[in-house]
Amino acid sequence: MAEERVIKIGMLGLGTVGTGVYKVLKSQQEEMLPKLGARVELKKILVRNVEKAAAKVDDPSIVTMNFEDIANDPEIEIVVEVMGGKQPAMNYILACLDAGKNVVTANKDLVASEGKKILAAAKRNGKDFLYEASVAGGIPIIRPVKQCLAANHITELMGIFNGTTNFILTKMSQEGMEFGDALRLAQDMGYAEADPTADVEGLDAGRKVAILASAAFNSRVTFEDVYTEGITKITATDIQYAKEMGCTIKLLGVAKDTPEGIEARVHPMLIDSNHPLATVNDSYNAVFLTGDAVQDTMFYGRGAGELPTASAVVGDIFDVVRNILWNCCGRIGCTCYRECPIKRVGEIKSKYFVRMQIENRYGTLASVASVFGNNKVSIAQMLQKRVNGKYAEIVVITDEVKERHFEDAMQILGGMSMIQEISSTIRVY
Amino acid sequence: MAEERVIKIGMLGLGTVGTGVYKVLKSQQEEMLPKLGARVELKKILVRNVEKAAAKVDDPSIVTMNFEDIANDPEIEIVVEVMGGKQPAMNYILACLDAGKNVVTANKDLVASEGKKILAAAKRNGKDFLYEASVAGGIPIIRPVKQCLAANHITELMGIFNGTTNFILTKMSQEGMEFGDALRLAQDMGYAEADPTADVEGLDAGRKVAILASAAFNSRVTFEDVYTEGITKITATDIQYAKEMGCTIKLLGVAKDTPEGIEARVHPMLIDSNHPLATVNDSYNAVFLTGDAVQDTMFYGRGAGELPTASAVVGDIFDVVRNILWNCCGRIGCTCYRECPIKRVGEIKSKYFVRMQIENRYGTLASVASVFGNNKVSIAQMLQKRVNGKYAEIVVITDEVKERHFEDAMQILGGMSMIQEISSTIRVY
Repeated sequence: MAEERVIKIGMLGLGTVGTGVYKVLKSQQEEMLPKLGARVELKKILVRNVEKAAAKVDDPSIVTMNFEDIANDPEIEIVVEVMGGKQPAMNYILACLDAGKNVVTANKDLVASEGKKILAAAKRNGKDFLYEASVAGGIPIIRPVKQCLAANHITELMGIFNGTTNFILTKMSQEGMEFGDALRLAQDMGYAEADPTADVEGLDAGRKVAILASAAFNSRVTFEDVYTEGITKITATDIQYAKEMGCTIKLLGVAKDTPEGIEARVHPMLIDSNHPLATVNDSYNAVFLTGDAVQDTMFYGRGAGELPTASAVVGDIFDVVRNILWNCCGRIGCTCYRECPIKRVGEIKSKYFVRMQIENRYGTLASVASVFGNNKVSIAQMLQKRVNGKYAEIVVITDEVKERHFEDAMQILGGMSMIQEISSTIRVY
Repeated sequence: MAEERVIKIGMLGLGTVGTGVYKVLKSQQEEMLPKLGARVELKKILVRNVEKAAAKVDDPSIVTMNFEDIANDPEIEIVVEVMGGKQPAMNYILACLDAGKNVVTANKDLVASEGKKILAAAKRNGKDFLYEASVAGGIPIIRPVKQCLAANHITELMGIFNGTTNFILTKMSQEGMEFGDALRLAQDMGYAEADPTADVEGLDAGRKVAILASAAFNSRVTFEDVYTEGITKITATDIQYAKEMGCTIKLLGVAKDTPEGIEARVHPMLIDSNHPLATVNDSYNAVFLTGDAVQDTMFYGRGAGELPTASAVVGDIFDVVRNILWNCCGRIGCTCYRECPIKRVGEIKSKYFVRMQIENRYGTLASVASVFGNNKVSIAQMLQKRVNGKYAEIVVITDEVKERHFEDAMQILGGMSMIQEISSTIRVY
């Protein structure tokens, strides 16, 4: 047999994901050669604190604080960016591609906003830029969409893209906890960060929706195109009422390719408890895709975490290694060859669940109903749930309406003295 | 832009899957060029009945009854084998590979038994042999395992690999039907064939387990290595008792990579109703995989049918097209670089559910218990379910035991006069 081929890689960052990548590469040390026909060697890791980092690796001489040690090393053929955040990650990635290196990343913030620009730089340089880990962590999804499902017109995707919020909603649903208590539990268990904004406001999920919608619809969708709404206003009461209606409340990312443009949004939603996504609990993620040939398909697993995310990153590294050996880097780059408009959120049609406290007297229900009617919102169901002294709690389920018409109705209802409070408005699948 | 590159393909067969491939290629006609950088043209289709086939295609001149029209046409770079069965498919595929063509197939019978030989022929000729459609139809699974999850030691896979039997079990579970009635319904609805043996005896699922286990464990598993047991003996009573215990009965394919060798088997099994596979109903398939990095992951969708299967076949065709354009055919071939022994089924450990009718008198239970005990079968639970005159129905749940010890106990129990009938023995996950 010929001499063993060694492919050298550099890594930017040694946080949770970087440590995972380090561990997974180590655990695959024996398998790489027969699996790929080459061995992968981690030559340099860029870190902020050399002392702290040195303690995490077998050979402390591989850590450096100088990016140029990686960018200017001609032996390094693949750079793994796992530092996160937009800058300096963006500049580093572009510099590496321009230096003729292939790049693998787990950075959803960056790909969701700058994917087009980075993929163009990769193409210009004839290099790979792979980002499987940026959506749904360890779950294989980008490659399945770009390759296995390439023969489909994918019309819709829907998924649970954030494990923290799914954990919170699961606790609220299974144990009747309120949002604040469930969030504190998630923080105690290490699922939620001290500042949980990106998770609970749907921003993290929105980034993943943008990246996946771009791959699924072959048209660029950026994070800025995604409407996001979080779960902070969901109460245990909403979840209880949803259950009574045979539904579960999930924070869903939804994107559709419609003749009027692409819809992309993240918000809490009532879905039928028999839907496969309804049974995805705890911190698990899942993505449900519909294509004209494959029909419905779902991908389920760990959307975050050290080793699951590293599974996806190292899978990408192995793919680049194969491409290097076969001299076909850049084989699958940007697949956004369409240019579809983005539908404004007001034009999207949704069904709504509305819970409100209204004056408990003759004529109030009729007034509420007429506000809906005057704003082109058709009511599918109206239920009086309970009476609290002077006020009654009612739940209205609407038919499918344009969101702007619904907003108009809500604004008027919000200003009416007979309505004490609009407690919740949640979309229904 | 340079002249449009056209890649010509030939197809062997125009049955259900072939017709689906024809339709999907047509529906992708506009998208191919921007997606792949080339157009795919179906130049010839090998059929048995030219008249019948001609009615299915726009241009009847593309159908032929002569294999040589495809094998000897130097313009044809990809051959799609969707005729099914072992011969002449095997000889045709080998002839095409030796003629320097890439091959895509949906043929599970062939890949499960002859995968190694065909992949060796592909390698010898530097060509692609892709078979994504041979496992779980439209569900992306072979490529995810070989690429996305390549950084894992996959330790276990478990799945619902056959839609017909899952439909039958779903009807038995949801509507209390007996096996025979559910099978007839499946036949009336076109889910089951007139001779349902391959489905209901677990052979079809066994072939898929062999193919997927080979990819997952990087060691060749053939259909002959897979223990198979069907669902014909499952009764509505078993399903009812399983439900009472919080379980669902599914026909599961299970494969494990253990230090003593690879286990591969298909049989009915009780699984916890909260397990993600328990909620996979009707004719859907799903595959659950466990890896050391990714942890648990599941893939769900349509495991059969014209268009879902064609989705996988055309996805493979598109991948070959990209490989042709990048001059890297053969990039990912056989990944079985390990040679693990296959564990004999008697050495596999399982828990069992046993339902039997025994004489309803003092001492019988003790005798039954001692037979189990004498054969190293430890009992986890023993329940008396009902009394029918002279006989009592009991259910025994065992702890994990070696299958051969369990078989020994069953043989002795079967010969005891105080036991009227051993009604069911079903494994428990």
